[in-house]
Amino acid sequence: MAVKRSTIITIGNEILKGRTINTNFAKIGKVLTFSGYEVFRGFVVDDSLESISWAIRSALEVSDMVVTTGGLGPTFDDMTLKGVSSAIGREMIYSEEAMEQLKGWYSHLNLEMTPERKKMAYVPEGSEIIENPVGAAPGILLRIDQKMLVSLPGVPAEMEAMLDLILDRIKNPGSYYLEKSTKFYGIMESTFAPYVNEIMKRENGLVYIKSHPLNRENNFPGIEIEVSARSESQERAEQTVDSIMNELTEVAKKLKS
Amino acid sequence: MAVKRSTIITIGNEILKGRTINTNFAKIGKVLTFSGYEVFRGFVVDDSLESISWAIRSALEVSDMVVTTGGLGPTFDDMTLKGVSSAIGREMIYSEEAMEQLKGWYSHLNLEMTPERKKMAYVPEGSEIIENPVGAAPGILLRIDQKMLVSLPGVPAEMEAMLDLILDRIKNPGSYYLEKSTKFYGIMESTFAPYVNEIMKRENGLVYIKSHPLNRENNFPGIEIEVSARSESQERAEQTVDSIMNELTEVAKKLKS
Repeated sequence: MAVKRSTIITIGNEILKGRTINTNFAKIGKVLTFSGYEVFRGFVVDDSLESISWAIRSALEVSDMVVTTGGLGPTFDDMTLKGVSSAIGREMIYSEEAMEQLKGWYSHLNLEMTPERKKMAYVPEGSEIIENPVGAAPGILLRIDQKMLVSLPGVPAEMEAMLDLILDRIKNPGSYYLEKSTKFYGIMESTFAPYVNEIMKRENGLVYIKSHPLNRENNFPGIEIEVSARSESQERAEQTVDSIMNELTEVAKKLKS
Repeated sequence: MAVKRSTIITIGNEILKGRTINTNFAKIGKVLTFSGYEVFRGFVVDDSLESISWAIRSALEVSDMVVTTGGLGPTFDDMTLKGVSSAIGREMIYSEEAMEQLKGWYSHLNLEMTPERKKMAYVPEGSEIIENPVGAAPGILLRIDQKMLVSLPGVPAEMEAMLDLILDRIKNPGSYYLEKSTKFYGIMESTFAPYVNEIMKRENGLVYIKSHPLNRENNFPGIEIEVSARSESQERAEQTVDSIMNELTEVAKKLKS
């Protein structure tokens, strides 16, 4: 099974300053995980050409799939596509397809095409245009050797609608991910930890077990245990997760009795 | 005025997989911004020694202040402090002060000190211990040449309580940040954009104006305009922000009439 790695890049000063909570990151992380990628890194960068292009270069060096969000709009500080262009060395070209979508959107609103709006029709050479069903800015999907780069807007409703449109194109075939979680009460994370360690070592990296303390470490403690596995088939991933979960449930029973 | 740069590192697979929304990032981003730092980059990394230590090295290269969150607990995948140790080349040493806090916490809960719990008393050499008032894992503050590195837990209540405890120690003196925002209705972001561009150019980087579309670009559009400035004094930052905000309000009036 070919595990593919992916990196998510969130672009925008409003995220860095804490004005906006980065919900886009979680949404993209979930979609990529269930599309067969190991999301192993994320970058948050400011709206500068230098930072955007640095993040894209760094991400492509170590990932098969890079998704950016933010910086596709009409304002001066929307410069993601220029950053992509400079990072991968492909020129910005005029896209008739993007312009048609922009014209459709703005004419529907009875608005003329200003230079700021026309700007959104320029994309790095080789881009497939992703339609924006709920806003102006189109997204792009680029294939770079065996890798893929996707740029989506930062407005959550637009980003989510466009991510849905490209699910088939981004899926990593032959890699299935499954996770299940359960809660155990009356056990503390630090009591459970040695058992988790032992099973993880035994399974040699094929299974991942994560514990999250509930109610913190106080007099009514609890933990949420999440077991996840990747496999070539959905069935096999499920068998693995279920068998480990049964084992952990037995451990929990023993610890409480 | 010395602008200092900072990077936030969030550690944890649950963030990468989208299981947890990264609210810690926003909280730390806000505190650092108002403490006089320009938060210009963020990393999200998995719970591996390699990734953690890569992120810390990369962040310290370009930042005066680095804050990490996550990976300080008792489980096998809590390895932030080992990552710090390897990134900055300082050995892990036993801290009597950390152990006293851990003993206090666990004895209060009538729990013994297991190896997993004792692990949390080992910190990179030179660490100042940050007390955890609401949980087990202590945090650390390290001074490295003229730079600072702070490691806090990932549980939001613990992270926030500990951030409050160190506000005085992390403040960048002589740098004040102020932002104000206002909403204009009946104007689209793309209509307002050229005026924002003009003012930003004229102010030559001393003022930052960001627009956020409200209700998207539809028939009842609106924008939120945020104006921010940094200065050596609170008064001067306020004067600057107010004067730009007045100018933008005039522009908005003109565009609507």
